[in-house]
Amino acid sequence: MSFTIQNALIPVDSGYETTDVQVADNCISAIAPNLSPVGTIIDGKNKLLLPGFVNAHTHSSEMWQRGIIPPLPLELWLAELYDFTPLDPEQVYLSALGTAVETLLSGGTSVVDHLVLIPGQELETIAAAVRAYQEIGIRAFIGPLIQDESLTAGMPAGEGGIEHAAYIRSTKATLELMEAAIKEFHNPEKDVNILLAPTGIQLCSDALFEGCIDLGDRYNLCLHAHLLETCAQKQLAQEKYGCSAVEHLQEIGFLSPRTSLAHCVWLDNDDIAIMAETKSTVVHNPLSNLRLGSGIAPILKYRQAGVNVSFGCDGAASNDSQDLLEAIKIGSILHNITDLDYRHWITPRQSVEMASLGGAKGLNLAEEMGSLTVGKKADFVLYDLTSLSLLPRTEPIGLLILGRPTNAVDSVWVNGKQIVAEGKVKTIDVDDLRRQLFDRSEWSSKRQSPMLGEIESHYRQVMKLPGYS
Amino acid sequence: MSFTIQNALIPVDSGYETTDVQVADNCISAIAPNLSPVGTIIDGKNKLLLPGFVNAHTHSSEMWQRGIIPPLPLELWLAELYDFTPLDPEQVYLSALGTAVETLLSGGTSVVDHLVLIPGQELETIAAAVRAYQEIGIRAFIGPLIQDESLTAGMPAGEGGIEHAAYIRSTKATLELMEAAIKEFHNPEKDVNILLAPTGIQLCSDALFEGCIDLGDRYNLCLHAHLLETCAQKQLAQEKYGCSAVEHLQEIGFLSPRTSLAHCVWLDNDDIAIMAETKSTVVHNPLSNLRLGSGIAPILKYRQAGVNVSFGCDGAASNDSQDLLEAIKIGSILHNITDLDYRHWITPRQSVEMASLGGAKGLNLAEEMGSLTVGKKADFVLYDLTSLSLLPRTEPIGLLILGRPTNAVDSVWVNGKQIVAEGKVKTIDVDDLRRQLFDRSEWSSKRQSPMLGEIESHYRQVMKLPGYS
Repeated sequence: MSFTIQNALIPVDSGYETTDVQVADNCISAIAPNLSPVGTIIDGKNKLLLPGFVNAHTHSSEMWQRGIIPPLPLELWLAELYDFTPLDPEQVYLSALGTAVETLLSGGTSVVDHLVLIPGQELETIAAAVRAYQEIGIRAFIGPLIQDESLTAGMPAGEGGIEHAAYIRSTKATLELMEAAIKEFHNPEKDVNILLAPTGIQLCSDALFEGCIDLGDRYNLCLHAHLLETCAQKQLAQEKYGCSAVEHLQEIGFLSPRTSLAHCVWLDNDDIAIMAETKSTVVHNPLSNLRLGSGIAPILKYRQAGVNVSFGCDGAASNDSQDLLEAIKIGSILHNITDLDYRHWITPRQSVEMASLGGAKGLNLAEEMGSLTVGKKADFVLYDLTSLSLLPRTEPIGLLILGRPTNAVDSVWVNGKQIVAEGKVKTIDVDDLRRQLFDRSEWSSKRQSPMLGEIESHYRQVMKLPGYS
Repeated sequence: MSFTIQNALIPVDSGYETTDVQVADNCISAIAPNLSPVGTIIDGKNKLLLPGFVNAHTHSSEMWQRGIIPPLPLELWLAELYDFTPLDPEQVYLSALGTAVETLLSGGTSVVDHLVLIPGQELETIAAAVRAYQEIGIRAFIGPLIQDESLTAGMPAGEGGIEHAAYIRSTKATLELMEAAIKEFHNPEKDVNILLAPTGIQLCSDALFEGCIDLGDRYNLCLHAHLLETCAQKQLAQEKYGCSAVEHLQEIGFLSPRTSLAHCVWLDNDDIAIMAETKSTVVHNPLSNLRLGSGIAPILKYRQAGVNVSFGCDGAASNDSQDLLEAIKIGSILHNITDLDYRHWITPRQSVEMASLGGAKGLNLAEEMGSLTVGKKADFVLYDLTSLSLLPRTEPIGLLILGRPTNAVDSVWVNGKQIVAEGKVKTIDVDDLRRQLFDRSEWSSKRQSPMLGEIESHYRQVMKLPGYS
């Protein structure tokens, strides 16, 4: 399958250039003006061509709870999430499709799905997500969300302490499950990749981390986890390890160029140096960090230290969207208030590079994707620069990143296959998806989370908030 | 012109209700289930009806520079803005239309345009904006942006001091111009209102503020200004008045229930008490405050002190969009990182009230608009709850405010007149607007602002940034 995009605008060092781009065998075969057309001709006039972005951290099935969880910090928000988590693999299939549609229509060509597993139907859950991503054609990186400690272990114990129930599955059984998932589903040739993705230090034993490292080494897979999303987790790490979470993860060997870590809000300068030294990637999820009151990740410091940074939407119950351009915009401008010297602020072109090449690096695929380079995978997006939201004409990338692009994605290709054309997803029936999401849900303004009631008082106590009893 | 919306979802204290809403003589005449239909019938099924929001602070003609100004703090960003400001009233007309379209399609029914005036064509500038807003039918509040000091006066002088050129127009001439504008354009019956809107303490003399207060009193008009957007302005106020800007504005009588103030980032607790005491309104512009690195306005403190708060997009060169739902979302969740106690965080329902009733209050119109109340103006918006971005069905207002609604505005009425139907603006030709914006602009990746070069070194010096010479 080969094609030629003619007369598209692409960014070059000196500004922009109008050029042709050719694709053959799923890869970019030529970039130059006035190429002899090969295959299907695509009109790129008045359109901007950029490498596809990576939605580098999300939890697709949270879409079932978007908009409904009240303003709560992570530790209490999780109780609401757990109490109403989807339990039907068909729901997982539908929300994976929804996540992919919103990602594609906001410039993404890859998604990292830190996938919540349905207890007792773990492989079925993964199968449902795989089916969705293969049908729609987005490049998928599925990290089944695993843990071996129960939810209350994720909060600092404080002085009073707190008792934890045993987790529903043993560490050994979880690692066996992961190996089965790798054997059944890991298939990079078909754009489906499995990641080893323990939840994070707050809910995982060292044995689980070490088992994941071992599987990652044996199957050459990437590692992914949450890291220091909240102040409470920082406090917990000190209780648990007597050192910072980053120091501990380095010690057990979890940090590497194949490791991406979501959030990274509460790292200090020593931690940042370790992230740089180990060539680990930070996935910045600005919207959930604000929504859950987690804080502002020190992204300018990461960049100055040479740490690779990419962007994620995070799950739709803490965002509550999967619009990658929104995450990139806010994740870029948010940091201007953290450093008076504007020479350190992120420029729109740097944002594009973080979202594309930064995302690829975090998946150990910088040689294969993340930029418009001959020989790389044809994962890219054409933006319609005649969209009202991108007018009047000024600086195309500035408009795209700093504005609020609406109906601006014209076409998307993943691995050389066109997934979106004229602003519409072509590989699935989006109206049917909407109908199914509608029919399987109902409007609701009240629901009571039993678990929230159980843990709120302890949370307020350890966080020293007033009015706990 | 009367009509009946049937079976729309509206928020009520206990959750949501499916109801009918009737409009007669531009006002809401009845809200109840199963009303006997009067006039045109509108199907509200699977749609959410909310009062229209107020885009409570913007500068419409900045649309010509959106996306292009690099990451810079306000004081330097202004130099870029001034050097390339539109100088043709036809441009002002087109960008006012563009601002109105984006505001309407993101839930707004009113716009406060702090309108940059073309020197020597001041009344023509206002006439162009009035023409645009009347054609499209949005409720317009135009505050011609006036000042009587030149740009460099807006920066702290620091130790070295800095010389200012005289401003191009005298205080007296400016006030005469405002009175002429009021006589010619202020016409609330036709949904066009003039505000007295001095730029702010950084560029205005007391004589100008006092002249505006006098005109406001004589013509019963609202007052509007920028207030303490940046740290530099706080420093400047101390240099200029020997007290805080808020204390000074209170002393000269500028603060009142008819006064709305954009930004209010750098107020301390005493200032906040004055804002509450004078019943002044804060207009929160979270996106420009991030983009320009100005800081986070203490919105939770304002709310706790009883200060009325509304939302604005600010001009499109510092945002760089006019999507009001984006400003509301970020302006709500941003504050969760400023207070550990989540019980103080803004809920989606509170955000809706701030954007609608809060906006109305800031324009001294809370009796006439800002809520779905019988007798109030029919300024409201129907959202399509079957948009993919609002699915699956959960909490409708949560989805709208915390999500990223895309193509979700189905219909908009202003003063009982339908402006948007089935997601399209009906009163103007939006494709023609796009063509004109396209034809009158060009893509550009480089431009040099002479003024920026002149003032950057002084700015770095007074802000104590490294590397100035």
